Amino acid sequence: MRSFASDNHAGAPPEILAALAAANVDHAPAYGEDAWTQRAAQCFRELLGEQARAYPVWGGTAANVLALRATCQPWEGVACTTVAHIHVHECGAPERIAGVKLHPLPTLDGKLAPEQIDPLLASAGDEHAVQLRLVSVAQATELGTSYTPDELRALSDHAHERGLLLHLDGARLANAAAFLGVPLRALTTDAGVDVVSFGATKLGAIGAEAVVLLREDLAPDFGYLRMQTGQLASKMRFLAAQLVALLTDDLWLRLASHANAMAARLAAGAAAVPGVRITQPVESNHVFACLPHAAIAPLQKQWPFYVWDAGRDEVRWLCSWDTTAQEVDDFIAALGDACV
Amino acid sequence: MRSFASDNHAGAPPEILAALAAANVDHAPAYGEDAWTQRAAQCFRELLGEQARAYPVWGGTAANVLALRATCQPWEGVACTTVAHIHVHECGAPERIAGVKLHPLPTLDGKLAPEQIDPLLASAGDEHAVQLRLVSVAQATELGTSYTPDELRALSDHAHERGLLLHLDGARLANAAAFLGVPLRALTTDAGVDVVSFGATKLGAIGAEAVVLLREDLAPDFGYLRMQTGQLASKMRFLAAQLVALLTDDLWLRLASHANAMAARLAAGAAAVPGVRITQPVESNHVFACLPHAAIAPLQKQWPFYVWDAGRDEVRWLCSWDTTAQEVDDFIAALGDACV
Amino acid sequence: MRSFASDNHAGAPPEILAALAAANVDHAPAYGEDAWTQRAAQCFRELLGEQARAYPVWGGTAANVLALRATCQPWEGVACTTVAHIHVHECGAPERIAGVKLHPLPTLDGKLAPEQIDPLLASAGDEHAVQLRLVSVAQATELGTSYTPDELRALSDHAHERGLLLHLDGARLANAAAFLGVPLRALTTDAGVDVVSFGATKLGAIGAEAVVLLREDLAPDFGYLRMQTGQLASKMRFLAAQLVALLTDDLWLRLASHANAMAARLAAGAAAVPGVRITQPVESNHVFACLPHAAIAPLQKQWPFYVWDAGRDEVRWLCSWDTTAQEVDDFIAALGDACV
Amino acid sequence: MRSFASDNHAGAPPEILAALAAANVDHAPAYGEDAWTQRAAQCFRELLGEQARAYPVWGGTAANVLALRATCQPWEGVACTTVAHIHVHECGAPERIAGVKLHPLPTLDGKLAPEQIDPLLASAGDEHAVQLRLVSVAQATELGTSYTPDELRALSDHAHERGLLLHLDGARLANAAAFLGVPLRALTTDAGVDVVSFGATKLGAIGAEAVVLLREDLAPDFGYLRMQTGQLASKMRFLAAQLVALLTDDLWLRLASHANAMAARLAAGAAAVPGVRITQPVESNHVFACLPHAAIAPLQKQWPFYVWDAGRDEVRWLCSWDTTAQEVDDFIAALGDACV
Repeated sequence: MRSFASDNHAGAPPEILAALAAANVDHAPAYGEDAWTQRAAQCFRELLGEQARAYPVWGGTAANVLALRATCQPWEGVACTTVAHIHVHECGAPERIAGVKLHPLPTLDGKLAPEQIDPLLASAGDEHAVQLRLVSVAQATELGTSYTPDELRALSDHAHERGLLLHLDGARLANAAAFLGVPLRALTTDAGVDVVSFGATKLGAIGAEAVVLLREDLAPDFGYLRMQTGQLASKMRFLAAQLVALLTDDLWLRLASHANAMAARLAAGAAAVPGVRITQPVESNHVFACLPHAAIAPLQKQWPFYVWDAGRDEVRWLCSWDTTAQEVDDFIAALGDACV
Repeated sequence: MRSFASDNHAGAPPEILAALAAANVDHAPAYGEDAWTQRAAQCFRELLGEQARAYPVWGGTAANVLALRATCQPWEGVACTTVAHIHVHECGAPERIAGVKLHPLPTLDGKLAPEQIDPLLASAGDEHAVQLRLVSVAQATELGTSYTPDELRALSDHAHERGLLLHLDGARLANAAAFLGVPLRALTTDAGVDVVSFGATKLGAIGAEAVVLLREDLAPDFGYLRMQTGQLASKMRFLAAQLVALLTDDLWLRLASHANAMAARLAAGAAAVPGVRITQPVESNHVFACLPHAAIAPLQKQWPFYVWDAGRDEVRWLCSWDTTAQEVDDFIAALGDACV
Repeated sequence: MRSFASDNHAGAPPEILAALAAANVDHAPAYGEDAWTQRAAQCFRELLGEQARAYPVWGGTAANVLALRATCQPWEGVACTTVAHIHVHECGAPERIAGVKLHPLPTLDGKLAPEQIDPLLASAGDEHAVQLRLVSVAQATELGTSYTPDELRALSDHAHERGLLLHLDGARLANAAAFLGVPLRALTTDAGVDVVSFGATKLGAIGAEAVVLLREDLAPDFGYLRMQTGQLASKMRFLAAQLVALLTDDLWLRLASHANAMAARLAAGAAAVPGVRITQPVESNHVFACLPHAAIAPLQKQWPFYVWDAGRDEVRWLCSWDTTAQEVDDFIAALGDACV
Repeated sequence: MRSFASDNHAGAPPEILAALAAANVDHAPAYGEDAWTQRAAQCFRELLGEQARAYPVWGGTAANVLALRATCQPWEGVACTTVAHIHVHECGAPERIAGVKLHPLPTLDGKLAPEQIDPLLASAGDEHAVQLRLVSVAQATELGTSYTPDELRALSDHAHERGLLLHLDGARLANAAAFLGVPLRALTTDAGVDVVSFGATKLGAIGAEAVVLLREDLAPDFGYLRMQTGQLASKMRFLAAQLVALLTDDLWLRLASHANAMAARLAAGAAAVPGVRITQPVESNHVFACLPHAAIAPLQKQWPFYVWDAGRDEVRWLCSWDTTAQEVDDFIAALGDACV
């Protein structure tokens, strides 16, 4: 099976399995007191700045929930987009587990504009209303677009001036950085981001993410939150080793760049097919396209992918670290056949 | 480093890494729609009975929290022991995340007796009181003892007669089964257990557990709870592959038996050291012992282990799938030296 | 002080204080085991139908939270309007205390249309998405409009056909019934409503509401939820006595009709003032109007009221059971002066 | 009906109804912005000290839950007694609504000793364990005993030295103060208490309590918590007026003293009955006694009261502000008859 449905349909590159094997020696302290976890923390400090405190966790939803728990009091809320993963794909964990209210705001391209936040501040100080505390944006967005460093800085400045914090759901942060040609630091610390859910699984890990706190005064007791939320791995060296592998020698960049390149190739090829219209800028490893209705189902039989918006026959294609140019070309050919 | 502090200080046996590598081929559906997850489910059905529904998760605390969420309404509570992992080592996740009240009951050996439950039923039907719903016991217990099949059956009969359910925190269920010389089914389905947290990490996985529902009518919507609790792995094949490896060809039994044998060897050797007193029956891979106070700290310098009860100089030693007889003998020799 | 800011600025009619005095005799069982609570339950059965189970509570936010707790599983959510009290004025209690996700839907007049619900069902069965369970509408709405019995029936039919339930936030249910000239039953049981937050405080009580369950199979353990949510009054006779007073001899109808009549008088008078535009149909005790900007602040100095939408100088006026025609006329005169 | 079952079986003294009537004039701002609420706050400042911030609420369980929410982070817990109302009679609200873990500690007389807290600090700093934050004691206790000012000071000193806070569940604080002959301040501010649930309902209100924060730096955003927990009364003047009435001209003291005197009379009379043994010091309005088994049921038929401990035929009698000496004497006579 080869799939364009999700980048988590791919497995892991050999470096990840090698890192697991290399970590599988001897006994090691549990719960993050091991050398691999220290090394992972060091990698994050080197890439994001000395103040970065990285907490490896297993899953992306949990990373986001922990970012909310680390920043919001019980009466505080979060601005996000209507397509935000935290809003539509986390089964209410932000509300039920973190206990915060989300304020979804509409966008055309998945990117929140600073001024969209302001109406939510109209009820500041009103005991009857949830108080806005956090702005949460995805990078790359759920629509495959990427905020530039300046756009992120505009968001963080806007937030900070209003006493708010900025969270980056970085499930595909590597893809955004690779697309923009900037270091990870330019999209996080240097852009004024306060807390990041750093995604490694979609990038190539078998299962590893990290919550990275970028403000020194933020959530000094975060460790308890991670444990309580069920995300403190006993054999954490196996999470940390994956993160170290990805963050060493720019493996993250090579994997993300490849996936992005395949998406660009796919978009270019698909755009040339009559009846196909690319609907979002391709700024990571996603391609969104409207197809002739009749083309979708037959194409899905061989190449799994999701219909994003059934009402307008818009589909989503995702490329992975292991997507090959041949596969892309084969898919474009099949697309051409299906659209005849 | 070689440690007797915890069985999660050990890494994974080669079969686990081989299983990860074997699963790392091709693309596969995410979130448990893959062939490995189906195989894991089949393994659990074969070992625990056809009605077993297994849900792989990453962590043990999360498995327990999910077992509580799957069984208790918001006004219902749980009987457990005062040494229960859910009570003392899960940072309040049962209360905060599952939202249930725990009723810790004292024991001498970590094993709950059926009649201890009854006083908690005195307020049945009283709107002011949490209503008991679940009895949760660990197998093996946190004190290394194991319930016999008859003891579990007595608990489940007692619970069921009172409209309660029985949960097994099976973080070390394999060790108990190996010690008792019975199949896993004898300690679960055949003993009337309703839901199991099946532990694989301490047994040898790099990180994998499963919640196994053993009643057909229990929690038909469990999938939502797992997702919401942040335990639905995207690349679940890598969780499932570990479970399959452990449940195939009795690997679980060989690993657990070895750890148990090392604990027995350790206990026997330690018991012969003057000044050392074994304080709990050795019925799994744990050894509890009281040592001369002055012996503890020097011994810990070379061989990490935990003091269990500082007040009486009682320590806990755990053996792992990879503990060697030589290590045990060396440790006993060091213990002898420290106790002189 | 006389206010058009809220109907909870008014006190209570003499019947309420008389009822409190009449209940203040002798000893009575606590927690709802008293005769007044039984009588209140009987009143609700007579007015809403034999299947009605009424649970008196203190507050309206709590009544709504309890209605959500009584109907939604942890992974289920609620459709409401963007102006819904549960969405904007309950400080996140639905999310934090009930643990449910709200899906706010836009309206022009505060009234939800059945077909607005359907897009929320697109993710039915998807473990990643909150599952819609409840449709919650306010009657009268937060914009002062009222659903006709047919409109409510259309909503409940639509909901039930999709396996959903219908909740009425009836903080001003009496006003709606009085406006429509129908019995309470026509807007609840006969309209297919499943659960009602019945409001008495804004109607004239000093503080009393009730959650009324209208389906026999709904929340058989509701009593525990009320207690746990901190809404089981010990001296409940004093809550119940207020409800009985309001529901006896149509006091609820007289109070609500008077408030409505005052709102109609106010709207008619205000509409005749140049520069004033009534912005919503007056179908209860609310009047919404756009005023000349300069008129608002001076007018508020003598007559408290709220600006509803500062962006378009829209204000909200509420009439109470004790608003007098003279006050209304004086206010209209002052409005006329302010708008010159 | 005349009852010794609970002090909430009584109604309210005339001063309370008069206060409600006096507050029932004119319009008043809602949600605590009214003059009565300001006056109540002033009463608390006068009685408890200038730093006292009082927040009226409806119910006692809610007051306690709010005290926990105001003091505990999600990973923090509470020491209390095994008979604590928060532990046994609040249907799990502390766990489910406040989200905190309780650590019940055994006592003979309902009074916690400072040194009982220390073992709970053994896991301070351990991410796996809930961190103790609050010591919660009832005054008077659930067994009718009262802490002296020195005993409370010993608790608060002990707590503060360990970085903990002290909460007083003062459902019957007035009874304790009346028994001890000290001002309310001696049992709160001057004893180092940090937060109080001040009970007025059992004292004589128809339904009013208050959370009183006694540290200036504690919970500056408490207002949001009260609103979110469903305890922000819209017509708060009617709550506040009751509190003002009780706190003015020592009405609280007269009511509590009378109830206490009746309990003392009852205990003295009962103690003289052969076969009756008073089991707790009578230090408020409670009497606990062991009776001949056969005497209990017949006596309950005419005079409602609760069996506290069925195993040893121990019953609880409570006197109220309106219990008369004649009733007490009649009851003693009936007790004498029943015990023959």
